[in-house]
Amino acid sequence: MRVIDFRSDTLTQPTVEMRQAMLNAELGDDVYGEDPTINKLEEMGAKLVGKEAALFVPSGTMGNQLAVLCHTQRGDEIILEERSHIYNYEAGGIAFLSGVQPRIVKGDNGIMSAGDVEKAIVTDKDIHHPQTGLICIENTHNMAGGIVVPLEAMEEIYELGRKYSLPIHLDGARVFNASTALGCDVRDITKYCDSIMFCLSKGLCAPVGSILAGSKDFIDKARRYRKMLGGGMRQAGILAAAGIIALTDMIQRLSEDHGNAKLLAKGLKYIEGIHISMDTVQSNIVMVDISSPKYSSYSLVDKLKEKGILASDINSSRIRFVTHKYISKDDIEHTISVFKEILQ
Amino acid sequence: MRVIDFRSDTLTQPTVEMRQAMLNAELGDDVYGEDPTINKLEEMGAKLVGKEAALFVPSGTMGNQLAVLCHTQRGDEIILEERSHIYNYEAGGIAFLSGVQPRIVKGDNGIMSAGDVEKAIVTDKDIHHPQTGLICIENTHNMAGGIVVPLEAMEEIYELGRKYSLPIHLDGARVFNASTALGCDVRDITKYCDSIMFCLSKGLCAPVGSILAGSKDFIDKARRYRKMLGGGMRQAGILAAAGIIALTDMIQRLSEDHGNAKLLAKGLKYIEGIHISMDTVQSNIVMVDISSPKYSSYSLVDKLKEKGILASDINSSRIRFVTHKYISKDDIEHTISVFKEILQ
Amino acid sequence: MRVIDFRSDTLTQPTVEMRQAMLNAELGDDVYGEDPTINKLEEMGAKLVGKEAALFVPSGTMGNQLAVLCHTQRGDEIILEERSHIYNYEAGGIAFLSGVQPRIVKGDNGIMSAGDVEKAIVTDKDIHHPQTGLICIENTHNMAGGIVVPLEAMEEIYELGRKYSLPIHLDGARVFNASTALGCDVRDITKYCDSIMFCLSKGLCAPVGSILAGSKDFIDKARRYRKMLGGGMRQAGILAAAGIIALTDMIQRLSEDHGNAKLLAKGLKYIEGIHISMDTVQSNIVMVDISSPKYSSYSLVDKLKEKGILASDINSSRIRFVTHKYISKDDIEHTISVFKEILQ
Amino acid sequence: MRVIDFRSDTLTQPTVEMRQAMLNAELGDDVYGEDPTINKLEEMGAKLVGKEAALFVPSGTMGNQLAVLCHTQRGDEIILEERSHIYNYEAGGIAFLSGVQPRIVKGDNGIMSAGDVEKAIVTDKDIHHPQTGLICIENTHNMAGGIVVPLEAMEEIYELGRKYSLPIHLDGARVFNASTALGCDVRDITKYCDSIMFCLSKGLCAPVGSILAGSKDFIDKARRYRKMLGGGMRQAGILAAAGIIALTDMIQRLSEDHGNAKLLAKGLKYIEGIHISMDTVQSNIVMVDISSPKYSSYSLVDKLKEKGILASDINSSRIRFVTHKYISKDDIEHTISVFKEILQ
Repeated sequence: MRVIDFRSDTLTQPTVEMRQAMLNAELGDDVYGEDPTINKLEEMGAKLVGKEAALFVPSGTMGNQLAVLCHTQRGDEIILEERSHIYNYEAGGIAFLSGVQPRIVKGDNGIMSAGDVEKAIVTDKDIHHPQTGLICIENTHNMAGGIVVPLEAMEEIYELGRKYSLPIHLDGARVFNASTALGCDVRDITKYCDSIMFCLSKGLCAPVGSILAGSKDFIDKARRYRKMLGGGMRQAGILAAAGIIALTDMIQRLSEDHGNAKLLAKGLKYIEGIHISMDTVQSNIVMVDISSPKYSSYSLVDKLKEKGILASDINSSRIRFVTHKYISKDDIEHTISVFKEILQ
Repeated sequence: MRVIDFRSDTLTQPTVEMRQAMLNAELGDDVYGEDPTINKLEEMGAKLVGKEAALFVPSGTMGNQLAVLCHTQRGDEIILEERSHIYNYEAGGIAFLSGVQPRIVKGDNGIMSAGDVEKAIVTDKDIHHPQTGLICIENTHNMAGGIVVPLEAMEEIYELGRKYSLPIHLDGARVFNASTALGCDVRDITKYCDSIMFCLSKGLCAPVGSILAGSKDFIDKARRYRKMLGGGMRQAGILAAAGIIALTDMIQRLSEDHGNAKLLAKGLKYIEGIHISMDTVQSNIVMVDISSPKYSSYSLVDKLKEKGILASDINSSRIRFVTHKYISKDDIEHTISVFKEILQ
Repeated sequence: MRVIDFRSDTLTQPTVEMRQAMLNAELGDDVYGEDPTINKLEEMGAKLVGKEAALFVPSGTMGNQLAVLCHTQRGDEIILEERSHIYNYEAGGIAFLSGVQPRIVKGDNGIMSAGDVEKAIVTDKDIHHPQTGLICIENTHNMAGGIVVPLEAMEEIYELGRKYSLPIHLDGARVFNASTALGCDVRDITKYCDSIMFCLSKGLCAPVGSILAGSKDFIDKARRYRKMLGGGMRQAGILAAAGIIALTDMIQRLSEDHGNAKLLAKGLKYIEGIHISMDTVQSNIVMVDISSPKYSSYSLVDKLKEKGILASDINSSRIRFVTHKYISKDDIEHTISVFKEILQ
Repeated sequence: MRVIDFRSDTLTQPTVEMRQAMLNAELGDDVYGEDPTINKLEEMGAKLVGKEAALFVPSGTMGNQLAVLCHTQRGDEIILEERSHIYNYEAGGIAFLSGVQPRIVKGDNGIMSAGDVEKAIVTDKDIHHPQTGLICIENTHNMAGGIVVPLEAMEEIYELGRKYSLPIHLDGARVFNASTALGCDVRDITKYCDSIMFCLSKGLCAPVGSILAGSKDFIDKARRYRKMLGGGMRQAGILAAAGIIALTDMIQRLSEDHGNAKLLAKGLKYIEGIHISMDTVQSNIVMVDISSPKYSSYSLVDKLKEKGILASDINSSRIRFVTHKYISKDDIEHTISVFKEILQ
């Protein structure tokens, strides 16, 4: 059976070129700082996002958690959007690892207003209150449906950071989807943060790994904590070899995924029992709301699976579809027709 | 100048009887479990709220933090109301000490609905998600204006606890204000929780100390952690002597404070520029909202201070007044007249 | 039965003067910084040990743990003597609360040599190694038998601190016993540390409380963390009133305890089956080693208890006797005769 | 210049077969549990060491830290040998991540006696004392010079674990060197532990990764914490493909490294100024002690480096040499001759 897997862009496999690069990668022991391919990737990554230094990490979660650890003091509070990945999908790491508590701001489709963020900042020194230590932004915002945080919103929050001497961390797991959607250089986004984590996997197809970037001091500190978390790897250049191709060759192809996401959204939105908020379909994610007498999201996901189409139920009425390199225009059309068959 | 201090009921000083009891208290070393006055107070406290065992702690914060520590596993999530004391006024202790993150539920005037709480419970075992470890209720709810969480709301959340095998902790810093307002035995409230912290200071006037109560196993565990936090005190019976009087003689006087709070609210509410939501004036707290062209809450608090009346600004438009043993009906009337003088 | 309790000087009860002072203490809410008696005690405490500022804490453990928290970064290593209180008797707090690991130095009778301390300092920046963050000294050293760390040893370690930019914390639970034994001003000792905790209870007889002293910044930080640990108390002046007498009237009486300890040691040392290292009997503690065919330390402690004499078994062959205000010369003589009766 | 790198076996690069296997590896998303190569490796790893389940982790440090996290309660104490990797080379992770403190036992050449371990176990419930939560053994013991902990020592400590209901974790980074040296099945060693971490890199030459193995419940828990630490990787099968070859083809070659280590030791030991304790040369590590008027270990390491021979200074008088796949018998002979040239 033809299987089309929309569950996540994390499912993407390395390309043939990536496998070939891994076969030939020049390696060394990265704990000794001697892996040339890692060194090359870290330098490339730092430059790409306009930061002084960068660190390869085995996952986006480790990158985000290291950022929280390095920016904060234990007992601080950090400002996070209500549906952000760091708050909801990182196993409670911020409290466990950094001893900081989230101060939750509800965004408009995941986009926090500077006004709301400012209200959430603790400005007194009252010993009852945890002190604000960090503001986090997620761009694109996964659970808001891959929405792009506009440059103006980034800038306004960054300015708050300057005003209150607070660092800004960007969870940019899919930041190249954001720059692609905005048609800008990624540095036009990353100039509004003090540190950024971005993934080499997901739409960029590397098998494993993310990059954390920021100032040199920040990255030196992160390198120490990475060791403690167990993220210091030996001949990690194997993975970096694929990461280099991800950054060199794969960013430009993200627009295809965005086109396919829009195609899917347009094809589904007129089907009875389905609602899609078209203005949130900005990158490679489509959130499909179901209001059908026949199906909950759970049963519809099961039904689709029988037909070879995999997607993720987010809650009882919402299903997430993520487009990526291994989903073609033809797959989109097939998916739309299967939907029609099921729901009509 | 006549000074009337509404800032908090924590300001209450021990009564003459309490001081006399402290003078004569029979003492021992409580770290050895040999302080007879502490032992008596802990037994009395456990019985009063219908729990197996109790522990004397130097503050309400320590009692709440020990409860979180004892009920949870590191990395868990705990459900807290948005304006609760544990989330907002305990210096970020839950993340720092217990390594747990808050899952915030917005209550209606501080009262969480069982439906919202149920939605906040994590029911899957997905490794991305922190697992829910505890539900906390605050009754009366300080920042909601001393509002009383009704027995039905308590019961429904307690039932959720049974359904999902989750403990319920009651931050009952002012639980006797709740039972006074409800006209019920405090056990009618505390039967809907697995552990409770209540204060001997505040309206009950003891100089220092709170009681944490729960099952015997829970209290054994809390005793160990209390030692680690530095809450193990030697001849603590000095403080317990006052605490015993707090529990014996002072609970019945809380109704006076409630009467005075209502009196104050009624006297102020018709003054131009002042808004008071009368149905929230249920215990000994009055939240006064200011919408005056002349005063922000900050400048009004300053102005009142000049006249000998002390109160707390909560934010730019809200002032909190707390009634207690050392505020008389006459003080209330004087306060109302000063308000009129200032605002009219 | 006449009971003589040598188990610990923590068992001392407040004097009549202390009780009277508590009866009449002027009070306020210390969380608001308004308790005049606390403020007076903190000022007096800081001055006494020659530091900028001081903080009242409910226990010596809290004072020590706050010092570790304030001096270190999470992930650091701290240097501790093998049998020190902080390592062995504070419930594992340094790892739990501060996330730091002990680097153990074996002292000579509890006295660490500067050479050994220097070897324990991590001087490289290798990311495998925790970085040294603090050196702790205990004076007098409880488990070494109340031994006094000489001024020269203090000074040498303090100089290491300057050399490597490492703070020195003094666990001075019984620092006035040290100054009494040395016949010096306590500041001659405390000038060799950056922070000190000393107890108002123990030999000084206050019912509850210790003082943490250090620089103003350090104490500001400690005040915030004290709140988080639950050590912020309301009308704590009740306890401070006794603490003031402890510092004013009780230090000079410690020499009596030292005299009694020597008397006890001299009286016991010739009894068959008993060994006492006389040169370690420097303050108010006597460690008695048993090598008797009839008794282990455990059974001897039980036997003594039958005769009304209480002491602590430290391990299978060692019993600790602590002298204090409520043990008289006559009690010592009685104890010696009971010992003879049992062992001969 | 011919370079011979004895600094560590972590420097080993993947073999041609490993690279080929990575090129062709069947992949999936391991966070979804769908990577067939990871699943195969984890199954193989569990079976090899006789445990129910296994987990792939990006480093030995992560494996050890997860074991400590999963076996202990915060505030516990864990028993560790004085020079063990977990205590000395994991960046202080046990305190930071698990909130546990080490109880240090000094081994004889890294081998703890059961008697000393038993003395270090806390058997009372005194709230002053951290409770023992875990015993860790390192086999082979890196800093003791690759020494093999004998089966009897393993068994005796394991029996203590049964007696006191304490789990035993084996830091088996080089456990196959131990089984090779003992000429036994690795299960003859691992049957004396509840959990084990072993490395696929080091002598086995995989580029990245280690295996943590234990009971199914233990591994389920570790999988959740691995996610939190950021060790959940996507198409990790790339690395597992090499790991499978490490376990299939590389274990048998470790005896060569052992032979070369002995050869090196024998060649060096008669050189003036060098001391080698031959009976500690049991696996692939040679500790060389220098007592030369001309050289400290630091200057000798520098001198050797000039000649193309790389080794690690451990302290001012000790240099560590580690043999591995990329060091031949000829390299050993060359090294010996260079040594003679320098020192004679």
